[in-house]
Amino acid sequence: MQNKIGREIPESVLALGFEPYQGEGAKDGVEYRKQGPRVRACEKPFESKVQSSLREAIVKCGLTDGMTISFHHHFRDGDYIVNMVMTEIAALGIKDITIAASSLGTAHDPVAEMIEQGIVTGIQTSGIRGKIGDVISHGKLKTPAILRSHGGRVRAIESGEVHIDVAFIGAPTSDCYGNARGKGGKSDCGVLSYAMVDAKYADKVVVITDTLVDFPNFPPSIEAIDVDYVVVVDEIGNPNKIASQAARMTQDPRDLMMAEMCAKVIAATEYFRDGFSFQTGAGGPSLAANRFLEPMLVKNGYKISWIIGGITQPAVELLNKGLVGTIVDAQDFDVPSLKSVHEHPRHFEISTSQYCNPANKGAFVNKLDFVILAALEIDTDFNVNVITGSDGVLRGAPGGHPDAAAGAKCTLIVAPLLRGRMPTVCERVVTVTTPGECIDVLVTDYGVAVNPRRQDLVEQLTRAGIPLCTIESLKQKAYEIAGAPDPLPFDDRVVAIMEARDGTVLDVVREIKPIA
Amino acid sequence: MQNKIGREIPESVLALGFEPYQGEGAKDGVEYRKQGPRVRACEKPFESKVQSSLREAIVKCGLTDGMTISFHHHFRDGDYIVNMVMTEIAALGIKDITIAASSLGTAHDPVAEMIEQGIVTGIQTSGIRGKIGDVISHGKLKTPAILRSHGGRVRAIESGEVHIDVAFIGAPTSDCYGNARGKGGKSDCGVLSYAMVDAKYADKVVVITDTLVDFPNFPPSIEAIDVDYVVVVDEIGNPNKIASQAARMTQDPRDLMMAEMCAKVIAATEYFRDGFSFQTGAGGPSLAANRFLEPMLVKNGYKISWIIGGITQPAVELLNKGLVGTIVDAQDFDVPSLKSVHEHPRHFEISTSQYCNPANKGAFVNKLDFVILAALEIDTDFNVNVITGSDGVLRGAPGGHPDAAAGAKCTLIVAPLLRGRMPTVCERVVTVTTPGECIDVLVTDYGVAVNPRRQDLVEQLTRAGIPLCTIESLKQKAYEIAGAPDPLPFDDRVVAIMEARDGTVLDVVREIKPIA
Repeated sequence: MQNKIGREIPESVLALGFEPYQGEGAKDGVEYRKQGPRVRACEKPFESKVQSSLREAIVKCGLTDGMTISFHHHFRDGDYIVNMVMTEIAALGIKDITIAASSLGTAHDPVAEMIEQGIVTGIQTSGIRGKIGDVISHGKLKTPAILRSHGGRVRAIESGEVHIDVAFIGAPTSDCYGNARGKGGKSDCGVLSYAMVDAKYADKVVVITDTLVDFPNFPPSIEAIDVDYVVVVDEIGNPNKIASQAARMTQDPRDLMMAEMCAKVIAATEYFRDGFSFQTGAGGPSLAANRFLEPMLVKNGYKISWIIGGITQPAVELLNKGLVGTIVDAQDFDVPSLKSVHEHPRHFEISTSQYCNPANKGAFVNKLDFVILAALEIDTDFNVNVITGSDGVLRGAPGGHPDAAAGAKCTLIVAPLLRGRMPTVCERVVTVTTPGECIDVLVTDYGVAVNPRRQDLVEQLTRAGIPLCTIESLKQKAYEIAGAPDPLPFDDRVVAIMEARDGTVLDVVREIKPIA
Repeated sequence: MQNKIGREIPESVLALGFEPYQGEGAKDGVEYRKQGPRVRACEKPFESKVQSSLREAIVKCGLTDGMTISFHHHFRDGDYIVNMVMTEIAALGIKDITIAASSLGTAHDPVAEMIEQGIVTGIQTSGIRGKIGDVISHGKLKTPAILRSHGGRVRAIESGEVHIDVAFIGAPTSDCYGNARGKGGKSDCGVLSYAMVDAKYADKVVVITDTLVDFPNFPPSIEAIDVDYVVVVDEIGNPNKIASQAARMTQDPRDLMMAEMCAKVIAATEYFRDGFSFQTGAGGPSLAANRFLEPMLVKNGYKISWIIGGITQPAVELLNKGLVGTIVDAQDFDVPSLKSVHEHPRHFEISTSQYCNPANKGAFVNKLDFVILAALEIDTDFNVNVITGSDGVLRGAPGGHPDAAAGAKCTLIVAPLLRGRMPTVCERVVTVTTPGECIDVLVTDYGVAVNPRRQDLVEQLTRAGIPLCTIESLKQKAYEIAGAPDPLPFDDRVVAIMEARDGTVLDVVREIKPIA
């Protein structure tokens, strides 16, 4: 059947118990009971949870065939944890494992082979890149991968849709009881926001660190009361790949032009007032928008109330200049950000539930004024794709994109009209990761289009003298330059299910045929 | 039947589903599934949770006859919240309410009348004083009150034994979304540790504040993601009764002598070494022990690793002098303590689960070296009573007493042999709140007795030249001076059930006969 946004959801997927997407906010107000983990009471005193080896911890957790394990991705491309744990699991002869990660990338290429071997038979993630995406797109994973936004992942765990048997949490520092922090140590990643829900809802929790510190390691991101075992290893990550030294500010004139237009669009709306809230992605033009916003703030005597999201240097600079009141931080992309969090008195770590869970009693994104996001593709219904590449292969991350887009009063997508010879603006995106009803404004290098649902913004931008065009005309222009893209050679088989924030099915990803 | 410590548990209590106490640590390692609250997904953006009145919030919560509501006691004798909420509930004609509070005191005397009227038919608490204790002891509450330690309360809530329908959380500051803090405002109480479990496990959560602050109110003790409604009132408490200006250090020579002996006992044990951990109650001699410990620390070049518990000025002073590494704080008894928490970089707020829940994966008390506690009575089996007065009426608080006693490697009770004409050391305490197997040393003004279970401590104290006597000889001395106490005129009816930390029944409290 077709879901609310006209995507065909096969019966085979509905038969798994999934509902089709029914529109933005369709599950607002739904009541449910949160699930709890199965835990062992530690009533008697004992001194330490440190185990002699990772293998010992895995064995003590009772990890067996068919279980679900989880990981966070705060170490990004520098992560050693996933491979370290999976190597032990494989060596123990355990198979049929589902990995429920907050994101998976090229650092985890060795897992691709374990998928082919049946050691890993399920993947649930908010991002997927490298060889894992490749083998899944080519039909090697036994079950369809389940793709969720960051907020959707928390919702799924808290509601019990995903039950984590064992969470493996890499931590830059931990004490012998498992009080763990994102700060400090050899592999500083600033915060452990993604892992917080895992610690609270997994039956067993293993903290893996390369820097054991004195008890109590406070304030903890992961609380000892939720941790079963602590494992100390030589290295949990490669610091050079965890965080870049500093955000590279784009010098590309096209990016700068789009960034300036984003700032102009923001300033033209009713939401641009003293105390607005703001989020940007870490992409070039999104980041550069900060540069153009700053003089507008100064000129108007405005201050940003709070900045949220994955944090980068420009946000930290605005905080240090007193142009932002508070940063609430769910991920650090660069060294200035991870140095600032917990150090600057108004730069705080938050959980991903606080950030963007659509099923709690009100996440930060619900009060967000502006977000600037990127897109691999955007279609004439304003649907955005950030998961499948132009070849139809999984190589992206919904991450917090659908969450921030749904929450923000004004959601901007910034993207060049073309990437190489591929139109970004198109008739129909390969995969919908963020529904068009959540997108308000598209800024491209060939013009600005406002979603027709937002006639209020059309008026406000027009009043401010910003020239607007239709998204159809942008698509037209793209196709004129590059030609209409050829349809991708998909097979019928569903290899991945793209969940909406609320757990319904937004779209499916099908197997891509091998090149003949 | 008799439980492990020889207390008669009536069949009527066992018939309610309770198990008799089976000894310290009997439930260690027991597996259970944590319960979750029933919540309403807030997927759609909205700006504020502030309601026009407390009544509106109560009505929106759907509060009806027979429900369980909860409160915290961080405002102590200055609390206005319980009476404010109960007055509205009574005015709405709602009845048969169970109050599950972290403690109840004289500030809540008006509730006594509601018990007689059947508006309140259940009480679950970790402390009970004033008229509420009186009417319960005289058989006016419809169901037996359930008394738990602070850790036992968290355990009961997390395991689902107590299900809170609506938590009412008084907060010194809150923003419009319910991010609430113990710090700041007109009724500063420092921390909101007791309320944290309520916020996470109650179906509905109402934050009541007299100081609404800008969003986001960070770092929050209570997270907005768990809060349904915010109510702003004129005053939530009386600051003069919330915290004393400064801890009154006793000048009583008897108290000082006992305090000095406590410090000597500590210094004589193997646990007195660099980096030990420490807790004291807020009573006179317990507090004064800090004064005598300090020179011993300096002399040995030792530093206390961490201090935990209800915090008072002496702990803050040791922190400021660099003689303590970290304070982890679950309650503030005086102004210096509540000023220090969140301000001194090593003075942290913790949840009551982190402090002392016996059913999580390892609370702080599990790693505690020393605790000095008080007692209303202690018997020759070292069982302690801190709940019933010498007249058999409920007027005390187990609080964290049983938790710290069970966790600490060395648990000291400090108490005068007699209070007026009443022996403190006796043959059999009226009510057991902390089992004798958790008590190691009794320090009185007439001598020091070590629990015979701890021959290691007998040796260490003897080696240090501390004169020891038996607890029987102390009882003998007390009875010689004051005479053996007359048995109290109890009826058969059980008016309160004293749970052990693990939820089994340690003892029961019976109705006291009216004076003829």
